[in-house]
Amino acid sequence: MRYELYYWPHIQGRGEYVRLALEEGEAEYVDVARLPESEGGGRPAVAKLLQDTANKYQPFAPPLLKAGKAVISHTANILQYLGPRLGLVPKAEAARLYAHGLQLTITDFVREAHDVHHPIANSLYYEDQKSEALRRAGHFRNERLTKFTNYFETVIARGGGRYLLGKSLSYVDLSMFQVMASLNYAFPESMAGLRDKIARLNALHDLVAARPRIARYIASPARLPFSTHDLMRHYPELDA
Amino acid sequence: MRYELYYWPHIQGRGEYVRLALEEGEAEYVDVARLPESEGGGRPAVAKLLQDTANKYQPFAPPLLKAGKAVISHTANILQYLGPRLGLVPKAEAARLYAHGLQLTITDFVREAHDVHHPIANSLYYEDQKSEALRRAGHFRNERLTKFTNYFETVIARGGGRYLLGKSLSYVDLSMFQVMASLNYAFPESMAGLRDKIARLNALHDLVAARPRIARYIASPARLPFSTHDLMRHYPELDA
Repeated sequence: MRYELYYWPHIQGRGEYVRLALEEGEAEYVDVARLPESEGGGRPAVAKLLQDTANKYQPFAPPLLKAGKAVISHTANILQYLGPRLGLVPKAEAARLYAHGLQLTITDFVREAHDVHHPIANSLYYEDQKSEALRRAGHFRNERLTKFTNYFETVIARGGGRYLLGKSLSYVDLSMFQVMASLNYAFPESMAGLRDKIARLNALHDLVAARPRIARYIASPARLPFSTHDLMRHYPELDA
Repeated sequence: MRYELYYWPHIQGRGEYVRLALEEGEAEYVDVARLPESEGGGRPAVAKLLQDTANKYQPFAPPLLKAGKAVISHTANILQYLGPRLGLVPKAEAARLYAHGLQLTITDFVREAHDVHHPIANSLYYEDQKSEALRRAGHFRNERLTKFTNYFETVIARGGGRYLLGKSLSYVDLSMFQVMASLNYAFPESMAGLRDKIARLNALHDLVAARPRIARYIASPARLPFSTHDLMRHYPELDA
C-alpha cells in the first residue's frame, strides 16, 4: 500500500506524529503537501482534499491519510489504522484498545500545551492574548504538565518494561518521543526542573531517538525545526 | 456481555455519550457510580478503578468501560468498541473509520464548548476566570460554533440521508443529539440565531429524541438535568 499524507507543509504539527510511524514502519508514502505546488503539492493540495465533494466522507481538518479509497482523519485514528499494518502495536485487542486510549490522552496533552499560548482563540495572534497566556501557563506548568508526565511515568512503570506498553515499541512510544522533544523545546526550564520525576520518559525519548530509522529521519531535511508557528512554542515568559 | 460504566455520578458529562449508546443498543449494563456507596458505588468506585494497581493498563480519567477483563478509556474509544457490538455502526471498515473521525471531531467540539467557561484552568472557579471567559465566548460563538455546526450540516448533506452516516442511525448520531441538546441548554440565544443554518442538525436532534428507547431514557430519573456543573454551562453573559 502506498499511503498519501496530507498536512500543512510549514510546521511539524500533528502530521509529525503520523510521519514518525510511517518512517519507523518503513511505509511507502508521499508527504503530498511537501511537494512543490507545480507537482500537485503545497497548501492547495490539502485544501483541495478538504473540499473534495466527490468524497462522500467529509473531513474536518488535516492530518489526513489516504489509503486506497479511504481518507482517514484525526491523528489518533490514523495511527490506530497504521499500527497493525506497520507492526507498531500488539495483536491482542485489549492492548490495542489501551494503546488507542494512551494516544487519545497524548492528544489531550498536546492540545493543552498548545492552548497555553492560545487560551482565547486560534484566530488571534499570541501577542493579542498574552496576558491570558501568562496566567494559563502557570497553571499548565504547576498542574497539568506534572499530572500528565506523572501519569505516563506510571504507565511505563506499570507495563514492566521501558516502553509504554511494556517490553516492545509501539506507535504510542513514537508519539511520546515527539511530545517530549516538543516540551523540551517549548518549556526547557520546567522540563529541567522535573528531571528527577520523569526519568522513565526521558529514557524513552532517548531510546526512540536512537532507533536507526528515527535517527536518520530526524537528521534529514524532512524533519522541520521546532518554531513559534508550531503546536508547542518556546516563549521564555511562559516557561518562567 | 454485561458492561460496567464508571463515571462521576453527579453530572451527565462525557459518560452521557456512552449511556446513550448503551440505552439505544439495549445493552446490559451497570452504571456503577450511580449505585449507593454502600453497594460499591459513588465516586469512590471511580477512584478505586483509577487507582487499581492490579490492572496492568493504567487509565487517565473516566469515563471507563469494563468489558470482561478489558478496561477501555476515552469516550470515542469506548463508542468505537461498542458500535459494532450494539449494531450502531456499519460493517465496512471505511465507514467505521469515518464514524470514529466524526466522533473525535465531536470530542473537540465539546471540549471547546467547555473551555468557553474555563479558558485558564479547570482548577479555578468560573468566577475566577470570568473576564477571560467573556472574551473567549465571543470567539466561540462567532467562529467555532459556526464552523463546527456548518461542518456537521455538510456531513449530513454529503451522506444523502438524515443521519451523519447517511440513511441509518449510528452511535455518532446519538452523540450529536447530546451535543445539540447541550448547546440548546447552554447557548439558547446563539442557537436560535443559527436556526436557519442548522436545519439538518435540528432535525437529527428531533429524530434521535423521538426514538423509543432514547425517549424512555430521557424521561427517566437516570437522565440528570443540565447544570452549571456540567461540560456545557448556561451563563447568560456567555451567550450574549
